[in-house]
Amino acid sequence: MNYQHILDDIYKASILQPKIGKVASYIPELSEINPNKLGISLTTINGENFSIGDSEERFSIQSISKVLSLTLAISLLGEKIWERVGVEPSGTAFNSLVQLEYEKGIPRNPFINAGAIVIADILVSHLKNPKEDFLSFIRVSSGIRTINFDESVAISEKNSGFRNAALANFLKSFGNLQNDVDEVLDFYFHQCAISMSCRELTQAFYFFANEGISQSGKQIINKSQVKRMNALMQTCGFYDESGEFTFRVGLPGKSGVGGGIVALLPKQFIVSTWSPRLNSNGNSELGMYVLEELTTKTGMSIF
Amino acid sequence: MNYQHILDDIYKASILQPKIGKVASYIPELSEINPNKLGISLTTINGENFSIGDSEERFSIQSISKVLSLTLAISLLGEKIWERVGVEPSGTAFNSLVQLEYEKGIPRNPFINAGAIVIADILVSHLKNPKEDFLSFIRVSSGIRTINFDESVAISEKNSGFRNAALANFLKSFGNLQNDVDEVLDFYFHQCAISMSCRELTQAFYFFANEGISQSGKQIINKSQVKRMNALMQTCGFYDESGEFTFRVGLPGKSGVGGGIVALLPKQFIVSTWSPRLNSNGNSELGMYVLEELTTKTGMSIF
Amino acid sequence: MNYQHILDDIYKASILQPKIGKVASYIPELSEINPNKLGISLTTINGENFSIGDSEERFSIQSISKVLSLTLAISLLGEKIWERVGVEPSGTAFNSLVQLEYEKGIPRNPFINAGAIVIADILVSHLKNPKEDFLSFIRVSSGIRTINFDESVAISEKNSGFRNAALANFLKSFGNLQNDVDEVLDFYFHQCAISMSCRELTQAFYFFANEGISQSGKQIINKSQVKRMNALMQTCGFYDESGEFTFRVGLPGKSGVGGGIVALLPKQFIVSTWSPRLNSNGNSELGMYVLEELTTKTGMSIF
Amino acid sequence: MNYQHILDDIYKASILQPKIGKVASYIPELSEINPNKLGISLTTINGENFSIGDSEERFSIQSISKVLSLTLAISLLGEKIWERVGVEPSGTAFNSLVQLEYEKGIPRNPFINAGAIVIADILVSHLKNPKEDFLSFIRVSSGIRTINFDESVAISEKNSGFRNAALANFLKSFGNLQNDVDEVLDFYFHQCAISMSCRELTQAFYFFANEGISQSGKQIINKSQVKRMNALMQTCGFYDESGEFTFRVGLPGKSGVGGGIVALLPKQFIVSTWSPRLNSNGNSELGMYVLEELTTKTGMSIF
Repeated sequence: MNYQHILDDIYKASILQPKIGKVASYIPELSEINPNKLGISLTTINGENFSIGDSEERFSIQSISKVLSLTLAISLLGEKIWERVGVEPSGTAFNSLVQLEYEKGIPRNPFINAGAIVIADILVSHLKNPKEDFLSFIRVSSGIRTINFDESVAISEKNSGFRNAALANFLKSFGNLQNDVDEVLDFYFHQCAISMSCRELTQAFYFFANEGISQSGKQIINKSQVKRMNALMQTCGFYDESGEFTFRVGLPGKSGVGGGIVALLPKQFIVSTWSPRLNSNGNSELGMYVLEELTTKTGMSIF
Repeated sequence: MNYQHILDDIYKASILQPKIGKVASYIPELSEINPNKLGISLTTINGENFSIGDSEERFSIQSISKVLSLTLAISLLGEKIWERVGVEPSGTAFNSLVQLEYEKGIPRNPFINAGAIVIADILVSHLKNPKEDFLSFIRVSSGIRTINFDESVAISEKNSGFRNAALANFLKSFGNLQNDVDEVLDFYFHQCAISMSCRELTQAFYFFANEGISQSGKQIINKSQVKRMNALMQTCGFYDESGEFTFRVGLPGKSGVGGGIVALLPKQFIVSTWSPRLNSNGNSELGMYVLEELTTKTGMSIF
Repeated sequence: MNYQHILDDIYKASILQPKIGKVASYIPELSEINPNKLGISLTTINGENFSIGDSEERFSIQSISKVLSLTLAISLLGEKIWERVGVEPSGTAFNSLVQLEYEKGIPRNPFINAGAIVIADILVSHLKNPKEDFLSFIRVSSGIRTINFDESVAISEKNSGFRNAALANFLKSFGNLQNDVDEVLDFYFHQCAISMSCRELTQAFYFFANEGISQSGKQIINKSQVKRMNALMQTCGFYDESGEFTFRVGLPGKSGVGGGIVALLPKQFIVSTWSPRLNSNGNSELGMYVLEELTTKTGMSIF
Repeated sequence: MNYQHILDDIYKASILQPKIGKVASYIPELSEINPNKLGISLTTINGENFSIGDSEERFSIQSISKVLSLTLAISLLGEKIWERVGVEPSGTAFNSLVQLEYEKGIPRNPFINAGAIVIADILVSHLKNPKEDFLSFIRVSSGIRTINFDESVAISEKNSGFRNAALANFLKSFGNLQNDVDEVLDFYFHQCAISMSCRELTQAFYFFANEGISQSGKQIINKSQVKRMNALMQTCGFYDESGEFTFRVGLPGKSGVGGGIVALLPKQFIVSTWSPRLNSNGNSELGMYVLEELTTKTGMSIF
């Protein structure tokens, strides 16, 4: 499979697509991004990388970080975490409080904001220096020592994060938040403020395609845990549009409001895209297009 | 892979499991089934079959039929059907009217009852003799000429089907049902009343694992449509428990309240189980166990 | 209090109001009504009547009939009916199925469609000739022998009544409908198709202002039942706008999509208006205005 | 009307009632109250007072304070406040976030917690010393200079008030909270922590029965505003049980989780009860009984 050729073709077609969607605007750090950025990067299981466009430029990974925080929580506590968060698609908008109320404070899954805040609470409880330790985990599993928080993004998130503060307080009222609300939110806002490039994301997610083993040969989580993580990305990775992504693309993956998407085909490749214009569901319009083209052209999907 | 050996082991372990769950009780034809029935059947892409237990005994396939009716609708109309039904997991109980109201009469997906009734309406519109033609479709794609409706089940469904009648009328009030309510429901109740054995189900679902081509070599739907059908089974096949099934089993599949489940690994195998005791979400308790064991023991899943 | 003078003033001001709102359009019999019709009629506890405009012209009373059917049900069965229907405001749109699902088939109150269908079911169970007997009840309590159904309205309601058919089937699926769905709906559609004028409505509702005793001196329901009926009109009489009506007008009352409203001040008067243009909540735009003016100008309300 | 005789009879019957319901337990200050306390006090429009039982003992008025804060907001800003809060019954539990989400941050009415927090925000914006000024308002309108906050209650509310913090943050995320979340909550928790006796409550609510004029002759709000306040108490005063209270008692009123209820008959009397055992809707079980007996025995209600 000549991946570079395929990526080149898709890239050329992509930049001719109508410019649909809007850049996330709730904080200045996201709203001021050039909306025309487009990066694509694919790393095969053999470690070969194929990239095009703005694939080396770092951006705010936002909700993509939820996969990594969940992975760390699972590696620390195992299946116990499922007492505090579910594994079902949400069926409603990604930051809805409605379902949380019906479910008595147990978020439907760890990728809606409420669920990710519970995971953040777990990490705050079990890590000595939560922010530093989380960063170390990503640096080790990706093999990239320079990955870091964007502090200005973290501060902006905090200053406009009333809905997340509502979620955290609501979780606490149900007894599903053990630490101080402000401490958990500080961790959560930092987690979402990690900056990475498309190429770096394919390296950080390599172990999900390689039975839990990172490019440097480290077993991050076991094979059974990888299966479950990929399953969760498949059913819950794209907010209220997870069914649509599975239907069109057919790969487990995760998106963020910074415009990034990462997806993978087990034992084959990890692919990441970045294009800041979002559709009405908060997913990158062009990123979805790129990935659908990729699985259509290659005929490679999990189905 | 010695599938027969694996199935034998799982079968032995299964019959020692605690007898949890309740047989569907809303019609006598289902409630009177022996709750201890257990059948497992697996057909490989090469056509080999491995079976154990009550794998040759026919049972009411119920909601499993929704996959087949959707397939026929897609083969007749293609992508046009997605104007009338969505592809997102429901996030609520399988016969809920709530979401239908919020969604203005467009069911979330074709596997919740409302969505399946819309598909039934499409088939009633496009088939000359809807019931006979649907039966022919299944007989041809499975290669089994004796597959038939269980008329007593169909009559019972009709006599207790007030919730489905509510759904159909509700859809009609939104303009998303074109034919007479009674005619559509008659088709729908018959569709759900098809009887098949585990072994027969693996034959009928063979083409989903074989890029759309049936065991007899007939192209039922194209490769891209297969991808989408498998994706839908993955995200929406198990009512309010689709996430759980994906998480534990990691295969696209579909369950029915008759206690049947069918699942598949593309290019590898199709597997079907039958055990009438259902968990609180309406899925076969033991069937879920069998399939989780299968993917755990073999290490074979889409993830 | 010179009611005629007050009504004249309000009438003059009313016809100068901007013509806001839309005539109900789901059946031709309602959509073809002249939208500029305006009638006002007020009958005092002493039996004096003051009227202006189209106050003698009959129109389709629609949901106003729900008060009369409930009254008959209470007079037949007393407090027992509250096992099958609640007394709380709905808090959502008037024909929503959502709440019915959460409440397990017990409608929130007898004035939402689901609740009125339960009351219709009760009357069908307890009346020998339901439609005739209901008509007799209204004729006797109002003293007007010519009140009748508009058969063409009843037929049109039936032909477009898929949402009500959905409700009735839904209620039946919960076990809260004892008779045949079609029979109950036939009664319900007739009940809503009664034609009365503003003046006639003040006579039919006279006993609610007179401790249960009609103008002809007949005790229709007892004093305690009157209190409860008026309370229900106060909290539930105007669909999703009951709070607004209470807030602005301060009288118990009931509206219908035919554009009619009837309201009353216990021991003082009964007032009825008719203007077909409806606001977004299904209540007569001008009727609300007239009644707010009346209680503001006279200073007479229950508060 | 011999009110003392009637109250004595009702009191005697009340203490023989089965002891149903539970004292509010979310803060120690409420949970440690003697559950058998029972006070009843009635003040007529002429200023006569009739009391029995624990009618002089102060208790935490809790949500009853919402009527007083709303009154002060209306007296300061008039009808403008209705841009930020509605007047419709909630139809769901009193602290639900669900409706707030559907309504895009506009609480259904000022007596659900979200609505009361919006009113608190308005008062924080418009009062120089919010807590002191609010206290002054109550002291002046009731004529009782010793009314005060119970600081230990206010502190406990704050320490367990995660759900209210969730509501405030949620409102802020919708732009319907102008001040700092903590400042608004501090005011709100103090407002709910006011202590008053049954007798004092009848004095503080006197002007609602007297066209806006307090016992000392001060016009607190105008006659039209009184009508609207009483209307709101009627439709929204008892959480998810407002319909039931209107239906059984037929008076506008307001309850609190401290076990207090105050109700009134315009131009006749104000009545208050205190009994800490609450029913499942958060209203005083015995208080509801006392008031239903009062309107039944006297035949005096707004209907």
